[in-house]
Order: sequence, then C-alpha cells, then structure tokens
Amino acid sequence: MQLKATIQQRRQKLADRFNGSVVLWSGSRTARNFPANVYPFRASSHFLYFAGLPLEQAAIRLDGGKLELFMDDSNATAELWHGKTPSRAQIAESIGADAAYPMSELAAKLNGNSLQTATLPVQDKATLAQQQQLLQRTISSQALIKPGENEATIDRTLALAIVELRLCHDQGAISELKKAASVTIEAHKAGMTAAKSAKREADIRAAIEQVIMANNMTCAYQSIVTVHGEVLHNEHYHHPVSPGDLLLADVGAETELGWAADVTRTFPVSGKFSASQRAIYEVVLAAHDACIDRLAPGVEYRDIHLTAARILAEGLVDLGILKGKPDDLVDLDAHALFFPHGVGHILGLDVHDMEDLGDLAGYEVGRTRSDRFGLGYLRLDRPLRAGMLVTIEPGFYQVPAILENQDWREKYQDLVDWQRLADFADVRGIRIEDDVLITDSGCEVLTSALPTKPEAIEELVTG
Amino acid sequence: MQLKATIQQRRQKLADRFNGSVVLWSGSRTARNFPANVYPFRASSHFLYFAGLPLEQAAIRLDGGKLELFMDDSNATAELWHGKTPSRAQIAESIGADAAYPMSELAAKLNGNSLQTATLPVQDKATLAQQQQLLQRTISSQALIKPGENEATIDRTLALAIVELRLCHDQGAISELKKAASVTIEAHKAGMTAAKSAKREADIRAAIEQVIMANNMTCAYQSIVTVHGEVLHNEHYHHPVSPGDLLLADVGAETELGWAADVTRTFPVSGKFSASQRAIYEVVLAAHDACIDRLAPGVEYRDIHLTAARILAEGLVDLGILKGKPDDLVDLDAHALFFPHGVGHILGLDVHDMEDLGDLAGYEVGRTRSDRFGLGYLRLDRPLRAGMLVTIEPGFYQVPAILENQDWREKYQDLVDWQRLADFADVRGIRIEDDVLITDSGCEVLTSALPTKPEAIEELVTG
Repeated sequence: MQLKATIQQRRQKLADRFNGSVVLWSGSRTARNFPANVYPFRASSHFLYFAGLPLEQAAIRLDGGKLELFMDDSNATAELWHGKTPSRAQIAESIGADAAYPMSELAAKLNGNSLQTATLPVQDKATLAQQQQLLQRTISSQALIKPGENEATIDRTLALAIVELRLCHDQGAISELKKAASVTIEAHKAGMTAAKSAKREADIRAAIEQVIMANNMTCAYQSIVTVHGEVLHNEHYHHPVSPGDLLLADVGAETELGWAADVTRTFPVSGKFSASQRAIYEVVLAAHDACIDRLAPGVEYRDIHLTAARILAEGLVDLGILKGKPDDLVDLDAHALFFPHGVGHILGLDVHDMEDLGDLAGYEVGRTRSDRFGLGYLRLDRPLRAGMLVTIEPGFYQVPAILENQDWREKYQDLVDWQRLADFADVRGIRIEDDVLITDSGCEVLTSALPTKPEAIEELVTG
Repeated sequence: MQLKATIQQRRQKLADRFNGSVVLWSGSRTARNFPANVYPFRASSHFLYFAGLPLEQAAIRLDGGKLELFMDDSNATAELWHGKTPSRAQIAESIGADAAYPMSELAAKLNGNSLQTATLPVQDKATLAQQQQLLQRTISSQALIKPGENEATIDRTLALAIVELRLCHDQGAISELKKAASVTIEAHKAGMTAAKSAKREADIRAAIEQVIMANNMTCAYQSIVTVHGEVLHNEHYHHPVSPGDLLLADVGAETELGWAADVTRTFPVSGKFSASQRAIYEVVLAAHDACIDRLAPGVEYRDIHLTAARILAEGLVDLGILKGKPDDLVDLDAHALFFPHGVGHILGLDVHDMEDLGDLAGYEVGRTRSDRFGLGYLRLDRPLRAGMLVTIEPGFYQVPAILENQDWREKYQDLVDWQRLADFADVRGIRIEDDVLITDSGCEVLTSALPTKPEAIEELVTG
C-alpha cells in the first residue's frame, strides 16, 4: 500500500477514536556545539505516524479524517545552501493532504479553539515553546501522564487514542519494520565477520554501523558494542578485544521514515565459546526460545517475562549456580541477580515505542510498575494483540553493582553457590534479542535470519 | 604536555586576562525521540577548553587560576545501567582541580555574587535554564554579542578574553588537532577506495565514517558526501553514483576530547577526471595552493579570500568562462557566481570555532560582515597570528539558485560566456579544503598527507 493510502487510513482511524481537532508538530533541529552545527534531525514519532515523512518545522492538523499541512517553502538563501527541496504543494500532494498553508497561518486556522485543540509534546524545547504559545497552555508529558485536577485532559485523551492505534502495526508499518530488521541482520553479520581482525570494540561497532549507513539508514539508538556486556547501557567502545572475550552487540537500524529494529547478539570474539560461556549461552537461548514459543494474541506479556525468569532459574540451578526450586527462586526474585531487566518492550517508530508517553503505551490502563526487584524494570504489561511488535531479550549478567551489593548478597546468600559462580567468570554479559510480530495465529520473528544457535554464531565469526 | 598541565596553563592565562569569577557548564544530553533515547553527548566547547574532559552535567568555577569542579557522583541505579564511572574525586585529580563539590553546592560557592559571576551560554536549553536561574539573569549569545543598554557586559568581557585564548592553539590543542587530521586523512582515503564499487553516495559516506568510528572518534559535523557538490550543505546520501560523476566529500573527525578536523576532497568516481572536470579542478587547486603559499602571521585573512577569488577569476578567464580582467571581475563579485562562500574559517574545538559567539571570534573588534555578494559569507576577517588554525577551501560550483537567478544573470550577462560554460556541465561542484596551522615562520598544512594533485587523486581512486 502506498504511503498516501496508509496515512489516510491512519487518520481515518484516529477520527473514529478521537472526536476533535488535533495538531501535531514535527519539531526542529537541536544545536550540538553551536547553532549551525546541529544533531541529525529526527521528526516526532507521532507526527511521522500521521504525516508519513520526516518534514522539519512542520505541523499537521487532523480533524475528522482530514489533514492540513503547515510548513514554509524554502527561500532563496536556503536553496543556495541546501538545494531545491520539494515545495509545500508537492509534499501536500505526496501525503494526500486536503490543504496546505504556510506555518504562519496555523494560529488563524485554529479559529480561537486553541484550548479545544489536542496535541502531544515534541522533544525539542524550541518547538515545545511554540506549541505552548499557540495552544495557550502548559504542554508536557507529565501533565498528560498524570493530569492535575485543573488540567485539561484533552491531550491525555488524544494520547490514549494514538496509543491504541500505534500499538498494532498496519501493513505500511510492517513493511518498514521488516526493512529495518533486514538491514540490522546484515549489520550484525558484518560485526561478527569483523571480530577476527578487531583490536577494539570500536572496530566492530564501525563494521556494524557501516552497513546501516550504507543503506542510508540511521541507528535507532546508541549502539552497545562491548566486551563488558554486564554494563547494561554501555556506551563506550574503547576496550581492547581479546580472544577469550564475549562481545555483546545491541544495534538496530531505523529506516528513513523512522521505523526501528532492535537486535542483540552475543558471540565469542575467537569464534569459539568456552565451555562456561557456551553453558550460560544455552540457558539464555532456552529462555529466548521458550518466550517466543509462547507469544500469541491474548497472552500476558508479563507471563512471558516470568517464563524467561523461570527458564533462566532452571538453567542456573542445573549449572549449580542457583540453589532451590526454580519457581521459588523466581518468587524470591533470585533470577534478577543475573537478569535484572525486563524481557522486552514494544517496538515501532521508537525503539521503546511511545516511551515519550511514560507507561501509557506499555502498561494496560489501571496497571502500574511493580516494586519487585525482578519485575520493576518490565516496560510492557499488557495482553498481546495481533499487530504488536515486541522484543524478546533475556540475558545473563554478572553486574558488580548487584553481586557486590552487601544487602543483596546477604538476602540471597543461601540461594547462590558463589564458589560455583566463580567457574563462569568469563561470562560477564550475554543477551539474545529478536523482534517478534504478534500475528493472528501466533507470531513471526522478523529477525530470524540472524542465527542464534551457538554453532551458527561460531560459524559466522570464523567465516 | 599532560592534560593537567595544559589546562592549568589555560586557566592561568584566563586569569591574566579576566579578573573575576567564571562558571562554565558542560551541558546535558538532549532527547531524540523520547527522553531516554538521546543524541550523543557533546560537552560545551568552552567547558572542554578549561576542564579538558567531556564530563556530563558538570560545571567548573575558575577564579584567579584556581579550578573548582562541581559534579555529582553516580548512584547505585546509574551504576547498574552504566557501570562504574570515575568518581568526582578521581576526575578532580586528573584535571588538577583545586577542589571538588557536588553540583548542589555551586549556588553556595557563588556566595551571593551571582551577578558578578561571568558565564557563557551552553547550547542545550535545560542547562541554559539552570545557568539563568543560578546567575539570576538572562543569558544568551545575542545578549553578549550585542549587549543592550542595561545588560551586564561581564559575559561579553569574558567572551572576548576566551576568544583571545582559543584563537591561538597551545601544544595540547595542536596535538589533538593533529590526531583529528590524521584520522580524517585515512577516512577520506577509504572513501576514495570505496568509490569504485559504490552504488550510492551512502556507500562512500559509510566507508569514510567507518574509519572515524573505528578510531573511536565522532564526526565534527554532518558529513557532505555527494555527487551534487553544487548543493553547498548537502545532507543527503541517496543519489546513485555514476562513472561520469565527481564526488565531493567534506568530512572531519573530532577527537574524544572534542578537537576537530575539516577536510574536503573532490574526485572522479571512475578514477579519471574528464577534460572539463580536470580543467576546473586545476583552477580550484591553483587558488588553494596560492592561498596556502601566502599564509603567515600578520597577513589579513580577507586578502587570502580575495587571492582565492582572483586566482579563480583568472582561471575562469583562461578557460573562456568569464570575460574581462580578473581584478575587475573580483571587484564586481563575478567570481562569486561560481564561488559564493568564504575561503575558510578558524578551526578548533568547533568546526567553525567559537561560532556560538557569532562573529566575536571570526571578526576583529570593530569589523563587521560586508554586504558584498563576494564577501558577505566570509567567516574570518582578522590578521593571522601564529597558533591560529584555519581552513583553506576554495571551490567552483554551478548553483542553480545563482546561475538561474534572473537578476544575477542580467547583472553578469556580459561577463560570462554562457555558451562556453555549457562545455563544463559535468562539473557541478568542486571544493578542495585543508587545515592549516599558522606558524611563526609561515604555516603548516596539517592535512597535507591527503593528496590534492589530480594524478594522485586518480591513483587513490583506481587503487
């Protein structure tokens, strides 16, 4: 289906769920070290969903299924530096807008109804200021996630309507998400191939991101490419890479229209897992596979998380690292000593889809985050539906901040065989992550072309 | 010289020029599409200059050559996700701070003297708000570039003092700038080598940036890698690359401590310039070489720009494209039809160094931008001094926004042989750019290891 038809359908669906006028801004560039040296532009995801194209400093007004585009044509100076760009009229045609105006006419088109016009806040502060000025109220994600007594709830109503739409992907979205997945798979393969000759993590990161860049895509998030997988959000690439190391690569491409992939693989730099590495890897892979086996409409994602926790606990008991019955260990959160994060999240235009709305998208209305050590980091707690795209990403980590924490060490003293654990010292962090689309009949792993089995991984690394 | 000694010397020099207390903030990350998905952090350049390290959410107070560091130690949750990071005390030691405190103590240390404390605005709006709150005034680059009648001029005085320091690079800076230059040279070579098998501009961009990334550096600015060099700030990489095309690559690395390179080469994708491409390339190269030959302390950079303009005019007259005497053509700005930008700018921690201060750094006090078509885009108008690093980047472009402009076409009707110009239709844009350090005896081209001669360029491309 063409872009035009896809977004036409999306705004019609919005009109079915939300009765009123909506204005969504795309946002503007933010300065890096001086105003003319900016970060790469990323349009607001809500804007992208309904406008389809990453237009800068634009807005759309949606009302009853109609779309009005507001943006300025480029001037002569802009053409000197940036070349001829499509005109407002051309863009309006390509996205099937019903009308198009210069940005300055947006205020007039609201027709005095600014308080009755719903919006969602963009990330860049300059555009946010414009939103607030035009709509004459404070606009913030806090206000719509937890509206105060006297605050308008129109934005929250809009947010909930958009969440319902964006949760289940249409064919246009799925086609983009598959493109992102496909390039991400090639990128990870290039990283595995590059490991042999890599001196530092940076060499492997560069090999991976080169593939994404050559496909004219960007990274959906800051890549994690590290021999210190136990640092969950490691953003450094300076460590040397040694033959005994496991390398954890968590990298995802984002298409030109903004759709993301999010994939992790962990592989032995030498091309051969040590016995201890392989043993733990097999446990994580068993959890990964068991979760995917269970994905289907109607299944509670929280139960998928607990499935991962139980399979990990079982595996660690079998290896002699944990002591006790797996179900009891999970009830006591002992698995979380080694698997402290959630088993995954929703994925779409954002790598943590719609996380700009806090937990509005991730959590079913009425549910909130658990206080439990083993559940608090779970980003998704809803029954699954066909069209949802989720990640499945169990892991095993030896995080010093956890394992050397005196309180936790005391609490779990009798459940862990610390001496046996020492046999696995060369396993600092393993994660295996795929992107899985819930279908009517179960699920489809969009990233299945990237092997997970240890033999296949070893083969890719040794080439 | 060690980092500690370098920055110790810088703050002593600042104390010699500025009498009073100064607080400089490093800034914080800005959100991309949701708060936890941020752009890569870049510390404020003024902070980097005096603190040496790209610390996040930190501030330094400088007074009489002393340095106090303000930053918070990471907490347990931060350690879970980001690993163990150096403590405030360790960082203070490594940069030779005289004292170090949590961020919350900054207000108290100002001791009620917030209006007498000078600062410079950072780029990210969240930190800027903190600056304004703490110093109890509006802080903006506009205010210090052109202070209003009632505005405090303390920040402007500080800015001018820092400009004087940052204009002439010390050994610590030069060592970093050479690292950036060296990696940039390797990156450009990789791009030339990749051209043969490239299908799109994106393939060549990826090959270039891979080298920068593998060296654990970042790009100092958004790379320009295009077969449409006539679009001066082209940010697209989707065009196919064909054998008859010239590819213009303007890419520079930035070291981990923030120091930049800025280099452009233009090469034939096939490995062989056409006769028309080579003819124009030789003209641009002659301008490039003539400018570099003249660089020395005391020389006016504006004269370097006019040298480039005259050599280009001469060359275009010789080729039969322009008609008249070169000096007259330059007086009439006819060169600017094909060379509409300035011949270069200062380079340091920023690719346009200190451009966050408008023209305070680029223009000698008392000088302002020219209204002339052929001079208005000149970013640097000062007599050169030893220690300054400048780019030299003449170019030739056929910019539709200029050449198809009716006013300009009429004005320059008799000075251009439009029919002859048509013989050079396969030359859309050529630029040759090097980074040149002014020395006591003349200058040193930091990027000279990357060839400029057409034969050597062809050899690199054909491999």
